[in-house]
Amino acid sequence: MPDNGRLITLEGIDGAGKSLQTRLLAENLRDLGHLVVTTFEPGGGQQGGLLRDLLTGDAASHWSPATEALLFTAARRHHLDGLVLPAIAEGKIVICDRFADSTRVYQGFDSETARHRVDQLHTLMIGTDPDLTFIIDIPVKLALERVARRSGGDARLDTFGSRLEDLRQGFLQLQQSFPHRCRVVNGDRESSEIASDLLAMSLEVIS
Amino acid sequence: MPDNGRLITLEGIDGAGKSLQTRLLAENLRDLGHLVVTTFEPGGGQQGGLLRDLLTGDAASHWSPATEALLFTAARRHHLDGLVLPAIAEGKIVICDRFADSTRVYQGFDSETARHRVDQLHTLMIGTDPDLTFIIDIPVKLALERVARRSGGDARLDTFGSRLEDLRQGFLQLQQSFPHRCRVVNGDRESSEIASDLLAMSLEVIS
Repeated sequence: MPDNGRLITLEGIDGAGKSLQTRLLAENLRDLGHLVVTTFEPGGGQQGGLLRDLLTGDAASHWSPATEALLFTAARRHHLDGLVLPAIAEGKIVICDRFADSTRVYQGFDSETARHRVDQLHTLMIGTDPDLTFIIDIPVKLALERVARRSGGDARLDTFGSRLEDLRQGFLQLQQSFPHRCRVVNGDRESSEIASDLLAMSLEVIS
Repeated sequence: MPDNGRLITLEGIDGAGKSLQTRLLAENLRDLGHLVVTTFEPGGGQQGGLLRDLLTGDAASHWSPATEALLFTAARRHHLDGLVLPAIAEGKIVICDRFADSTRVYQGFDSETARHRVDQLHTLMIGTDPDLTFIIDIPVKLALERVARRSGGDARLDTFGSRLEDLRQGFLQLQQSFPHRCRVVNGDRESSEIASDLLAMSLEVIS
């Protein structure tokens, strides 16, 4: 089995630029000859759309944080088994737009108990951690402007209003929890400049 | 808060007669003046149908046992929060057709590791155990005859063919794992005779 497979994840509040930077990082790595797969959560992989619909569609507002944590973890287990782990085993670099850290921040938001439960659920049912995680950080004001500009987008995951600054801080705190793999990146810059930083840091874990 | 709320569950392979006995037990308890709610898993409670569709519909065959365990547990958490626990808190007797023991038997079937994982998941995310569990036991041959007679039924949960006897044994073993709450009941008898036994044993935990 090739040992150069890697999992790189991008995290941050909606509007941070995760999707764009996922695409740019994949392009830049491919230009250097790497085999790259891009994907996203929730809902990446076959049948994943059914789970994404549950989590972002009309039903989404009915789930408690505990039920949401279970559904996101189900979607993640399915995504890992069907797409992420096979690609890593083939020596590919998988770049994933959101992963377990989003569940930690959103479904672990309410209390230390909730966060602890999400961590235990991850250990029990997932077990896979990224080799590298970019936390793309932008001011809440900019995030709201960007999300508002999107038409019919997937804003629900972040429609917490005043909680957005707390969520931003939740993402930033991941750096303290997982310093070996998390890198905070200033997302309030030209996209090419951000992409250049992400490429340089990625090459450090790939080579 | 009234302290007479109770959770009674019925378990066993498909065709064992769980649904009929759930209804008969509810009728018999109501005749004695008890407040009774009947429900079922997966999918009991509002929006639960969305989760039941995932677990028993066209998509069902795509999930691994680990993903299934997470989805069943999500459905259970939602069902508990929305229906079961509020009813128990109001002093009602909740009779539920399948509960966590079904996940233990079906999603814990493949190995001791899988079963241990299901048990840990239950402890972490559910925590609620029934006051009384009836394991309705019938021979596999009779189960297959009954399921075949059903038209367009929900046979998927049990379409394991040759594994059915092992699943039956898995249900019977719950009696050893949880002797304080599990009662094995011979389901190959007149339904009124079974119902009479279930009522008598239920009254022991209700009074």
